[in-house]
Amino acid sequence: MAARALIFDVFGTCVDWRTSVAREVATAIPTIDAFAFADAWRGEYQPAMERIRSGNRGYVALDDLHLENLHHVLAKFETACAEPKELNRAWEKLDPWPDVCAGLGALKKLALIAPCSNGSIAMMARLAKYGGLPWDCVLGAEIARNYKPNPDVYLASARALRLEPRDVLMVAAHNDDLEAAQNAGFQTAFVPRPTEHGHNQATDLFPSGSWTIVAQDFRELARRI
Amino acid sequence: MAARALIFDVFGTCVDWRTSVAREVATAIPTIDAFAFADAWRGEYQPAMERIRSGNRGYVALDDLHLENLHHVLAKFETACAEPKELNRAWEKLDPWPDVCAGLGALKKLALIAPCSNGSIAMMARLAKYGGLPWDCVLGAEIARNYKPNPDVYLASARALRLEPRDVLMVAAHNDDLEAAQNAGFQTAFVPRPTEHGHNQATDLFPSGSWTIVAQDFRELARRI
Repeated sequence: MAARALIFDVFGTCVDWRTSVAREVATAIPTIDAFAFADAWRGEYQPAMERIRSGNRGYVALDDLHLENLHHVLAKFETACAEPKELNRAWEKLDPWPDVCAGLGALKKLALIAPCSNGSIAMMARLAKYGGLPWDCVLGAEIARNYKPNPDVYLASARALRLEPRDVLMVAAHNDDLEAAQNAGFQTAFVPRPTEHGHNQATDLFPSGSWTIVAQDFRELARRI
Repeated sequence: MAARALIFDVFGTCVDWRTSVAREVATAIPTIDAFAFADAWRGEYQPAMERIRSGNRGYVALDDLHLENLHHVLAKFETACAEPKELNRAWEKLDPWPDVCAGLGALKKLALIAPCSNGSIAMMARLAKYGGLPWDCVLGAEIARNYKPNPDVYLASARALRLEPRDVLMVAAHNDDLEAAQNAGFQTAFVPRPTEHGHNQATDLFPSGSWTIVAQDFRELARRI
């Protein structure tokens, strides 16, 4: 059955967070290995969200988690930066992969399109403006006040569109994201991003589940919908 | 101080709900006065929301209130329609006023733009797709789970953008909407829509408060920001 809406993972799936964050880090702190710093910053992401998913902490927006994590990573690297809040805005200046804007433009003519990201509404809105991502609305973690892969995040997003999960297709470059969405009743599309983590990436190079669609990029995805 | 985001009333301010709803009514029930029916349907809007604002009923999305109200109005008009749920989708097919898309396009280059409407996320997303409204994200009643002019709706919208109310400008064709926003600490812009209620409209023809900006349409608003 045709999907009436497509919801998207964003970090890694729509945008190249690693190269973009490293670029901002290199400007703010020229003396360190910017890619190692970006990887370490992103490495704090899952543990920070896990405290919230597990109920040990109330919902805190990813913008605030990123800033807390930045301070941890600055300490680990035994360095400092003049304006941590400004560097934290690196997460609002992430370049889309080359196929994304054209692909989303084509998909927007066929169905509702929205991010279902762990990023906040503010972060997603600013990221969309920066990169030209033509979303119909912003869904995801903030409306659920929880973090993926908790099923509430996918289910709250479908509910906000007033659609059943079976009528919504989740698009991601990460098999675990799709597994959680599929378990919640959603259609799924895997789009590999083999350089998300750099040229030695070993994870998520191939689909590991029975996804509804596997497409090489968003342009192919638009042709297949 | 320059606004970093603009949030908009939608029904009446961005879209001509009356002519558009009457058009759909005329198609679904050709035997009745479609404008009188549209006015009666809209007449049920404030009382339905007031039960929620007053705490006598939990949050129910406007889509559902509109459908309940449609049944009331069908009974008042002693008529019926074959597919009430389909007619209820009239509220997703509302034509923008002629200046709106160009004006929003210009404003989008200057600041974040989002609806702060009593419509649901689903309704706003479908309305944006129907009319080509280029929102950065959808804010308003659903994220606050309350209805304007309750201050929570404006405040939740600013919070979702991670901005202070003083950095956000509320745009509306209704003085009472702007009064509530101003009382909550927002900047305000009045854009009159003198035919929202038809050619004999007697309300909201002029600004009744000290608003930050008064503009004749969204193109003028864009020039003034």
